[in-house]
Amino acid sequence: MSQMNILRAANYPRMPWKNGGGSTEEITRDAGTGLEGFGWRLSIADIAESGGFSTFAGYERIITVLQGGGMTLTVDGRATRPLHPLDPFAFSGESHVHCTLLGGPIRDFNLIYSPLRYRARLQWMTGEQRFFSEAGTVLVFSADPALHAQAGESVAELGLFDCLQLNGNTGLLEIATRGQCCVIELMAH
Amino acid sequence: MSQMNILRAANYPRMPWKNGGGSTEEITRDAGTGLEGFGWRLSIADIAESGGFSTFAGYERIITVLQGGGMTLTVDGRATRPLHPLDPFAFSGESHVHCTLLGGPIRDFNLIYSPLRYRARLQWMTGEQRFFSEAGTVLVFSADPALHAQAGESVAELGLFDCLQLNGNTGLLEIATRGQCCVIELMAH
Repeated sequence: MSQMNILRAANYPRMPWKNGGGSTEEITRDAGTGLEGFGWRLSIADIAESGGFSTFAGYERIITVLQGGGMTLTVDGRATRPLHPLDPFAFSGESHVHCTLLGGPIRDFNLIYSPLRYRARLQWMTGEQRFFSEAGTVLVFSADPALHAQAGESVAELGLFDCLQLNGNTGLLEIATRGQCCVIELMAH
Repeated sequence: MSQMNILRAANYPRMPWKNGGGSTEEITRDAGTGLEGFGWRLSIADIAESGGFSTFAGYERIITVLQGGGMTLTVDGRATRPLHPLDPFAFSGESHVHCTLLGGPIRDFNLIYSPLRYRARLQWMTGEQRFFSEAGTVLVFSADPALHAQAGESVAELGLFDCLQLNGNTGLLEIATRGQCCVIELMAH
């Protein structure tokens, strides 16, 4: 049996960074506490100034700028393309990463997961989309002030940065979205 | 190491049905021959007249009308909505299915797979799309006269009903498409 939760952006816990360069809001995760023990985690970060990222050895990351003037990352000494809103970029959590802001503070969206524990899929979608998935966990993160989502017979209306979380799916589930969102699907190994 | 093949529509083998009501072109499959032994199979069918479908016990199916006036299916006695081009519908291969054509012959696209052997994902896409996937097998079936697809560093140009097949993927692969296509992702259990 699958279980559906709607996570509201207003309720995400916020944690300032030790170095003062930004703060993180945690959206959801599978397990663990703090920076330890999770197999996957979704979060939003507000980056106030250029600086280094924390490393997450053993994890993969996909980052997407949500708002602001964008950034360039230097990943193990190699500069990325300029990353603007809704342009996702994947990198290893082990890499040494430095972020250079291109035009003031930004807000970004982060998937961090352990490839030993999960297989992940991530896609930004817009307009009307429909797909069939057998992933055990499906997350629909809204980047739309009014996102409509349907999973099987259940419907949800999401505001900006709200997140729909579906756990325990075991069959071929039909999912439909209308609006700008990021769909993350995770399968435990 | 992943391996990429481009399958051209002109080369698909065609098999007429025994009952004379249509014919099937096989696009690709994982294993087996004829109607036996595959874990998944992609095919195109030309349906000339209303009639019954073959059963595939132990398999799941997703069917999409590609061309023509559409159809209604009766699945174990229950009628579906009218199915028009690019509106995918999932059903069990064990079901007794009767197809009623709504406006003359149609062409449809079929995924048939064993949920005991694979987990499947299917999505019709249009315009520019980009996603990250760890599926072992990724198939991009073109319903566009000029589809552009990119998987990692490899690019492909597909004509109408051509299919890109990527096998042996083991990492987080970035895939981009431009044009109308159906993306099927399969993970062996």
